[in-house]
Parts: sequence; structure tokens; C-alpha cells
Amino acid sequence: MRDQALNYVQTHQADTLEALKAFLRIPSVGALPEHNDDTIQAAQWLVDRLTAIGLHHVQIMPTPGHPMVYADWLEAGPDAPTLMIYGHYDVQPVDPLEEWLTPPFEPTVKGEDIYGRGTADDKGQLYIHVAAVEAYLQAAGRLPLNIKFLLEGEEESGSTHLEDFVKAHQSLLQADAALISDSHILDPATPILITGVRGLTYMEISMRGSRQDLHSGTYGGVVENPLNAMVKLLASLRDEQGRVTIPGFYDDVKPLNQAERRAINTGPTSETSVLAETGAPALWGDPDYTVAERTGARPTLDIHGIKGGFIGHGAKTVIPATASAKVSMRLVAHQDHKKIAELFRQHVLSISPPTMEVTVDTINTGGGAVIDMATPAMQAAADAYEQTFGRPPLYLREGGSLPIVPLFIDILHAPVVLMGFGLPDDNLHAPNEKFHLPNFYRGIETAIVYYDILAERLAKRQAG
Amino acid sequence: MRDQALNYVQTHQADTLEALKAFLRIPSVGALPEHNDDTIQAAQWLVDRLTAIGLHHVQIMPTPGHPMVYADWLEAGPDAPTLMIYGHYDVQPVDPLEEWLTPPFEPTVKGEDIYGRGTADDKGQLYIHVAAVEAYLQAAGRLPLNIKFLLEGEEESGSTHLEDFVKAHQSLLQADAALISDSHILDPATPILITGVRGLTYMEISMRGSRQDLHSGTYGGVVENPLNAMVKLLASLRDEQGRVTIPGFYDDVKPLNQAERRAINTGPTSETSVLAETGAPALWGDPDYTVAERTGARPTLDIHGIKGGFIGHGAKTVIPATASAKVSMRLVAHQDHKKIAELFRQHVLSISPPTMEVTVDTINTGGGAVIDMATPAMQAAADAYEQTFGRPPLYLREGGSLPIVPLFIDILHAPVVLMGFGLPDDNLHAPNEKFHLPNFYRGIETAIVYYDILAERLAKRQAG
Repeated sequence: MRDQALNYVQTHQADTLEALKAFLRIPSVGALPEHNDDTIQAAQWLVDRLTAIGLHHVQIMPTPGHPMVYADWLEAGPDAPTLMIYGHYDVQPVDPLEEWLTPPFEPTVKGEDIYGRGTADDKGQLYIHVAAVEAYLQAAGRLPLNIKFLLEGEEESGSTHLEDFVKAHQSLLQADAALISDSHILDPATPILITGVRGLTYMEISMRGSRQDLHSGTYGGVVENPLNAMVKLLASLRDEQGRVTIPGFYDDVKPLNQAERRAINTGPTSETSVLAETGAPALWGDPDYTVAERTGARPTLDIHGIKGGFIGHGAKTVIPATASAKVSMRLVAHQDHKKIAELFRQHVLSISPPTMEVTVDTINTGGGAVIDMATPAMQAAADAYEQTFGRPPLYLREGGSLPIVPLFIDILHAPVVLMGFGLPDDNLHAPNEKFHLPNFYRGIETAIVYYDILAERLAKRQAG
Repeated sequence: MRDQALNYVQTHQADTLEALKAFLRIPSVGALPEHNDDTIQAAQWLVDRLTAIGLHHVQIMPTPGHPMVYADWLEAGPDAPTLMIYGHYDVQPVDPLEEWLTPPFEPTVKGEDIYGRGTADDKGQLYIHVAAVEAYLQAAGRLPLNIKFLLEGEEESGSTHLEDFVKAHQSLLQADAALISDSHILDPATPILITGVRGLTYMEISMRGSRQDLHSGTYGGVVENPLNAMVKLLASLRDEQGRVTIPGFYDDVKPLNQAERRAINTGPTSETSVLAETGAPALWGDPDYTVAERTGARPTLDIHGIKGGFIGHGAKTVIPATASAKVSMRLVAHQDHKKIAELFRQHVLSISPPTMEVTVDTINTGGGAVIDMATPAMQAAADAYEQTFGRPPLYLREGGSLPIVPLFIDILHAPVVLMGFGLPDDNLHAPNEKFHLPNFYRGIETAIVYYDILAERLAKRQAG
């Protein structure tokens, strides 16, 4: 069965790439209301595709935001294990558009890479599993285990409605393991399994200093400028060493023990690798932790944008009436994302100057998680990687956030495997996002092998 | 002659308002390249209008930026004094457009006010003199003195090419006094003469922290975020008391003596007036100076906009590759605007972190000036105000900047009079800019009276 599927993949590469391109052409920027129709169109495209390749119960399931796409194939029977495959069909905004070398929604193959928004995050990686399931069903007429797809449209907006959805559909979503391909490996030859993800609390601070925009010549030095007040407030949120200054912020951060530090520091992330990947003049951060530790095992605070005033060409001497700032914090396991949002809110209000009316809003939040390397689902993933890549994976604490991970662990009690196929230089969330096509095809092969190994491992375990 | 002109104004109010509206409809946002054609169109409109009312030598005079419009009427003869009238036909950008209650370039009369961009700053005030000259020439066939118009298209962009232009055309522009109507009075019944303007140095700081935008989950806490670095740098440019921290910034600020402080503090600006005009929750600034002193007699530093990252709806977890900030400083007399630009540049570079590639650019600069209350030109202005408003003017140090003022004083050695007709709540540089129509008509009358008084005063003086 596995060999039939692998053979099918080999002989259908061109068709698979064309299908992926059609998916990538839909500008499903879930966070932007002007792309709402496009985002729905991407969900509908998935429904059509999953139906065409032979899945069952294919449906759009509404949420108060963008809907979930659900599909399954349960013909392997009640004794066979069930694998849940999660992915997301929404993509990041494309700005700054002028820095794209090819149009973000016209997927373009250059050399061994395909360029376009969503190629790596996450349409390309999601489609690996669509193609793997297609290969089994078309070539062998069946899969070695039961499969459920849960495909989200709000991952890039913080998975706002995912928690309620998972809680409301626990029995539908019940699975023996959950697999997510939305992460990267070290290089095209070296796979990585993720052993943890960070939580995220994304906030917005708004300030008003006057009824209307003011002339800086008339009111400068007398009426405080919300941009000046904002930079003062934002600058105070981190100290000279880059530590977050919000009282209580670190209270629930579990210290890293020696074994964890050793494991993290034998991974691929180093000062040299980060300098090479980013072109940064120098690195930065808490000197008590190594670069590898700060990337994933420590919380952070970043400003993502500051609105207000004039950013056009030339000069405008305005004191804007209002200013706002988007700020997010990456959280590590044991930090409660909702508690952090409240600590942030209280702290910002407590340090706000009397010259400003200040409001603090939570844009979205989600928890972090630690993933146990020893589950059969994780060991099967390591074996599948080794069979297709020819070498065992490295292990890494991922700095990013995937709200589905703690939800699956906490609500569905299913072990989660993060088996990615992106590369560190894929320009996620940036112009010129790309996906390495050899990884795409090898990813499909790895998925095929993984389903097979997992079916055997979990079946054995249930029997034994 | 004066009475003929005043009578003409009374009987032509509707025509005058229609002409002003046509001028206001041209969206001459000089700072925005996409409005270059509109800005030229405004200059051409003035040429047509000044020709139609009987001025001579009406012409567009090129500069490397937007052109000057020049016109004169010199038939009063070589023994009569010559008055230079300066104004500007460019207007501020209109953003945030969504806060305008009426379209910014469709002038709309509501009650006694006309709303639209440029109504007060400066098309409406400039047009007061066009209408006054028209009244003399149409009703009496002559003016009591010689008149020269110099109308600029780059005032809102810092008058980039004005200094070179004035230096290159000193004999053409020679005048016995210069009059500018681009300021405000206290209220519709209380005129104000300006006794000083501040200089302006407008800078832009640009930072690059990485080759491309980065994912905050992957690189947060390791690669510094240019927005975080920028707010830290910007926040350090003022201390807790609002004093600018750039070394040497105050070196050339002349201390205010007791007489000056007394004069300034008997003017109309107070904590109460500013709170009422702006709706600010509380005022702010250097506690060693009163509100009236800080408005005009002390230098300031304001941030006008911060670019970089994501300011759209929702959440994007980007570490932008670059960030930039627009910052201006208002300067008082004796501070050299070019020296301040260089001090700013050196200081910003000296405190820039090693994680950022930083550049500092000068967007524009211009000097400040103090205006002597005792010149015949100023005394004539006080008398004209008193005749038309029924009360003598108050005197005020203006916080804004008018590069023409120090240029006329330093290069042409002409006394300058700032005789405005705006109101403090005209929303200059902000949405819903307006001009009070009774001030517009009374302004035309005041201009007519002023030309007459000035002709007499300066002629007497030359004779005596």
C-alpha cells in the first residue's frame, strides 16, 4: 500500500504542483476584512479538492470568524488508530508589497523554489498531506489508518475561535495523535522535530492626547504628543538587557534545568546561524541565556507597528490627536496567556501619563506547550524522517506559537507531532515567501511513510 | 480711495467668496508628489486671477521645487513705499481623511465658517490681500502704495527653495515692509500681532535591523526589532521634564528677561485657553516656564510619525526589517537651524545601538526671528487693526515657523508684519480645517485700511 502511494506521488508531481498553485493563487489574507471573500474561497477550494480525492464528510463548519474545513476517511475501522491532520488555509498580509520580486498571489517557480504568500506558511505544507492522502486513496484505494482533517482560516489572526470550536466538537475531533506541518527543518537534508511552542499575547495600546490633530508650532511643548508619550511608554516595557519589565511577567516561567539547557544548546540555532539567516549587524537579548535558549525557551516582547501622525513623503508638522501601537509577547510553557494579557493591561494603564486617555485591548492570545519526545507518535515521526531523509531528526524548541498544540494536548488529550518541511530562510510573514520544492515532494513521501509507521505502532500498542 | 475700496468689498462679498472657493477646490498638497499637477494648477489659478484684477508682471517663477508666483503694481511711483505681500498656495496633506466631516477640497459653508483644507492656512488669508488689491484697483483704479506679491508653493514642506530664491532676486523683491497673513487672532473680536516666530529643523531617522522582515516567533529576543530600538532612542530625546537631551541643544537659547516674560505672560495664551482649545486631559512641559512661554519662546521636539511593521486591522507578528521616524524641533531666535540639525544627527548616531544600521536625514530646516514692535510698519498694523476691530491688538510670540520671516529680515532688511485673521480653533494641519467668514471679510477691510495707513506713515517718514 505504501509503495503504491509512493509510486503515485512520483508519477504525479506535475499535477500536484499545479493543484498547489491554484490553492496559492487565492489571496486568503484572513486578518484583512477586504479579503473575507477570498478567505472563504480558499475554504471552498479545499472542500472541492478533498471531495475530489475521495475523503468523506467534507464540510465547511462555521465559527464566528472564518470557518473550519473538516473532512475524514474512517474506513480503516475502529481498531485502527486515527490521525488528526491540522493545517491552516489563511495567509499573512503581504505588505510591504513593493518589496516582492514576484506577485505574492501568482506562485512563481524559480530554480528549486516556489515563491508566493502561503507557499511555506501554511498552504504548501498543508497540501503535503492532501497529496499524501490522495496518493493512498487513488493508488491503493485505502489508507493504513483513519484520517481526520481540520483546516483553519484564522491561524494568522491568533486562532481566535479555535478553542471554542475544539471544545464544542470534542467527539468529532477525537484522535490518537495529531500531526501538524507548519514548521521548518534545519536544511534540505536535516529534519527537525519540535519539542515545544510558545504562547502568544497580542495587545493594542491606544492613546488620545487632544480632540483633534494639532499644529506642533502652536501646541508643541504644551500639549503632549501621543507619539512621544507612546515611545516613552513602549521603551519602558523592556530593560537594558531586554528583559520584560511588566511586574509578574516572569513569575510562572519555569527555570530551565541543566538537561534542558544542554539539549537546547546542541540544536541547530546559534549566533552564527541567526546572523547568517537575517543579516543583522549584531544580535541582542538577555545575556543570561544563549541564542538557542532565547529562541523558544524564553518569553519576548515585540512592537509590531505604531500608528498615528504622518508617514508620507516629506514633512508634516502635526501633533496627532491619537496614536496606537501593536505589541505582542511570546510566552513559554507555564505562563498563562490570559493572565499575561491582564498584567500587561494593568501595567500599561498604571504607567500611562495624565496627558493621555489610554485604552488597552487584547487582539488575541494563545498558550504555549512542551511536547514529549517519547510518545509513540513522536518516535514514529523520527523513524519516518530517518527513512526518507536518511538521517534522524534534530530536536528544537520552536519560538513561534501554534494555538492548536496546547488545545489538542489539553482538550483532546492527543499527542501532537510537529513535523515540518519549511526552511529557515523561507521568509515567513515577510516579502518573497518561498517553499523549497524538493522539500515539498519529500514531505509528501515522508507523510506517506509516517501514516504507515504510525498505523503499525499505535495498532501494536493497542493490541499489546 | 480707501472708501471706494471699502465700498467695493461690501458690494462684492458673494463674488469674492466664489473666487475663494474655486481656489480652495484645487488640492495643492505640495508635499505629496501625487499632487504635483494640482499644486502647479493652484499657481496657474493665481496667475490668472492676479492678471484679471489688474496686477502687472504676473508670472510663474521656477524653483527646483514648486514655483513662486510673482506679481506687482508699482504705479504709485518711486516716492511711494513698497509693500511686499507674502502667502502660500500649497496646503497640508488631508490624512486622516476619514475624520473630515465634509470633503477637504469641496469648500463648505456651515454657519459663519467655511470648511476645507487651506481655508485658513493659507489660501483664505492669502486671498484677503488679492481681494483688497482688487477692491482698490477696480473701485479706484489705483493703490495708495506699490505692491509686490510673492506667493510660495512649498511653505508646508519647509520652504525648501525660498532662501535661494530670495537671495537670487533681491532687487526684484526689495520692499519697505513685508506683510504676511498666515497667523491667528485671539477671537473674532480681538486681533493679535506676532512678535516672533520659531525656527524648525525637521529630521528623519531610519533604522535597519535585518535583511528582510522576520517572524517574531523565530527571531524575537535574538534579533532586535527596529521598532523597539526606535522607541528606545526616541524616548531618550526628551527628559522627564520635557527638556531636549541633545548635547548643545540649548547653548544658543537666549534666556528670557523679566520684561519679556511679563509681556508674554500678559498675552492670551494660558493653561485654561489651551485646555479649552484642545480638549487635552492635562498639559505638559518644562515646569520652569509658563504655558505662554513654552508656546513660542522655548524650543520643542515632537515626533510626527513612525513607519514600519503592521498597522492594519488585527494581528501580524512581524519584526520589520526597517523602521523610520519623522522628528521636528521648533527653535527660538539665536538657535541656528543648520547647527541643530547636525547636533541631532551626531547625537542620534552616537546613541544608536550596534544592532541597527542607522541613517539620519534632514528633511528641511529654517530659522526663527524676533519682530520689533516699534517699526512704523508694525505700528501701522496696530492702528489698522484698531480701526477695523475697534480695539488694539494683543502681542504674541508665535510657536510656529515661517521661514520667510528671518529671510526678509536678514536678506532684504525689510521689517516684517504678521497680521493674521485665523482663529485658534481653525484646525490647522488637522481634519476639518475652517476659516471664520466674518474674519475673512473684516480681514479684507483691515488690509485696505493698512495699505492706506502704511502709505501715509512711510511716505511721511521718507519725507521727514
